[in-house]
Amino acid sequence: MDNQRIVLASRPEGWVTEGNFRLEKAPLPAPQDGEILVKNLWLSLDPYMRGRMSEQKSYVKGVDIGEVMVGQTAGEVVESKNPAFKKGDHVLTQLGWQLYGVTKEANKVDAARAPLSYYLGVLGMPGLTAYFGLKEIGQPKPGETVVVSAASGAVGSVVGQLAKLWGCRAVGIAGGPEKCAYVKDELGFDVCLDYKSGRLRDELKKEKIDVYFDNVGGEILDLALARTNLFGRVVVCGTISDYNATDPYRVKNWRAILVNRLKVQGMIVFDWKDRYGEALKAIGGYLAAGKLKTRESVVEGLANAPQGFIALLKGGNFGKQLVKLA
Amino acid sequence: MDNQRIVLASRPEGWVTEGNFRLEKAPLPAPQDGEILVKNLWLSLDPYMRGRMSEQKSYVKGVDIGEVMVGQTAGEVVESKNPAFKKGDHVLTQLGWQLYGVTKEANKVDAARAPLSYYLGVLGMPGLTAYFGLKEIGQPKPGETVVVSAASGAVGSVVGQLAKLWGCRAVGIAGGPEKCAYVKDELGFDVCLDYKSGRLRDELKKEKIDVYFDNVGGEILDLALARTNLFGRVVVCGTISDYNATDPYRVKNWRAILVNRLKVQGMIVFDWKDRYGEALKAIGGYLAAGKLKTRESVVEGLANAPQGFIALLKGGNFGKQLVKLA
Repeated sequence: MDNQRIVLASRPEGWVTEGNFRLEKAPLPAPQDGEILVKNLWLSLDPYMRGRMSEQKSYVKGVDIGEVMVGQTAGEVVESKNPAFKKGDHVLTQLGWQLYGVTKEANKVDAARAPLSYYLGVLGMPGLTAYFGLKEIGQPKPGETVVVSAASGAVGSVVGQLAKLWGCRAVGIAGGPEKCAYVKDELGFDVCLDYKSGRLRDELKKEKIDVYFDNVGGEILDLALARTNLFGRVVVCGTISDYNATDPYRVKNWRAILVNRLKVQGMIVFDWKDRYGEALKAIGGYLAAGKLKTRESVVEGLANAPQGFIALLKGGNFGKQLVKLA
Repeated sequence: MDNQRIVLASRPEGWVTEGNFRLEKAPLPAPQDGEILVKNLWLSLDPYMRGRMSEQKSYVKGVDIGEVMVGQTAGEVVESKNPAFKKGDHVLTQLGWQLYGVTKEANKVDAARAPLSYYLGVLGMPGLTAYFGLKEIGQPKPGETVVVSAASGAVGSVVGQLAKLWGCRAVGIAGGPEKCAYVKDELGFDVCLDYKSGRLRDELKKEKIDVYFDNVGGEILDLALARTNLFGRVVVCGTISDYNATDPYRVKNWRAILVNRLKVQGMIVFDWKDRYGEALKAIGGYLAAGKLKTRESVVEGLANAPQGFIALLKGGNFGKQLVKLA
């Protein structure tokens, strides 16, 4: 039995291509004392991975050429040399784009309580990002208007639903009528604006924004800044529109921060790890009560991970983008 | 005895010129019941006035063509029909660019405790802006590095001195060797960087910024964003570099907000008016103890106010820019 893994073959210039990745065979690694051998069942694909493919400074180091692509996985322990884990345990790890891996660092999850893949989505980093970003940085008050970009994505879909649960008006921004219908009709946002329609600027004029949860950066950010209310909050969570640009977008409406006394803050989920339990309890409760909906876009097989990742960067996904590895 | 006043003659396009103003004579106004007639002794000149000359949206309405230019003044009551004031009282008002005016809204100040002009500077809006902006938005901790632009100006000079008093390293940014020497040698900043030297980018590379107090916007803001520490704070207090630009500067390093989890917040002093007393007590204490230095740039006579204002916008002032009216 061999391992298979996808390594970074070259750094992208502009858009990511399949040629930036290489699928390799490798011998199955053997766990040392304290380690476990994990069979990865699900791989999470996330926009932040685009940053790791570059040499650009970011909040963590990038992937080297020839290294396995980073990523969070949900899997099953197949061999344990660590007393904290036993064969058959389900675990979350950072083993990346490969079928097997050994590690000392894993978090057990209960696959009986929720589908294993949920721990990569609504009960994982995207759900936690939405929860802390909205609650602690956005600080929404009942009756306020929360606008979120990439509203049909893994983070955005949770942001808008939490906004509704917390008594706010939820306005999504998404690409295309199909996504907008999903956001409005299935997720229950009050409104969803289609940024591909050419009408976003005009449609945003009807809104005064108390909280803008930004997953995209770029022109949409500028349009949102121009529509903020006094003392509005901006959650800076992602700049996906920049990830494939060779030059960063230059923000025009900075002055809105002064004029409207905005509070603009960067959001990285690791900063909240001491409070993950609180968030998971809340999100788990909403899920159990049927108050929070989630959707997954799944590509089958490790070999299709690059294609799934490129689709994600181009906005092809509904909800959480996953690779089913086994 | 006539009044004299300066009105907005035309809106500037780009740089302000003296032609945008007109000096007029007018009859001395008579106070009605509840009003006082004030002889203005000092007029404060401030960068925000540039915004009021435009029709552009800002935090308050602009000046109409033909209207007296707005501005804060310190003066003396010459006639009172308001029981709260008597002839000879010293007051702060918003009577604008004129020698006399009537108003119901005035705040008494004690010209025996500090020179009257100080109530327009270190004990007035600029001092309060520095205090609340640094303390509440900047939240500096001892040992941290505070960088402030327009460091020789009315706000910046107080920001850096408070930073030192509160145990921080204070780094100023100012234009030209003379201002930098003043900031470092007289005001006691640790360092002052000359943005006109062409070396600002390189010199900032030696700093990691915990608090950036921004009075200028533009390229200096971008350079500072690139040098922020994790969890840094940016006080957005002014964008003077934009005031005379027909297009706003476009900010390139927005992504630093995400990568470094910055907190960026707009600062307008009115928002803190419930706490002015606390700040004035603190600043007054530092002044009395000789721990806070202040300097004024004074032009003589109302007719020279436009020239003083243009010099201020071009960075000609040291410390607080004032017009001595009488």
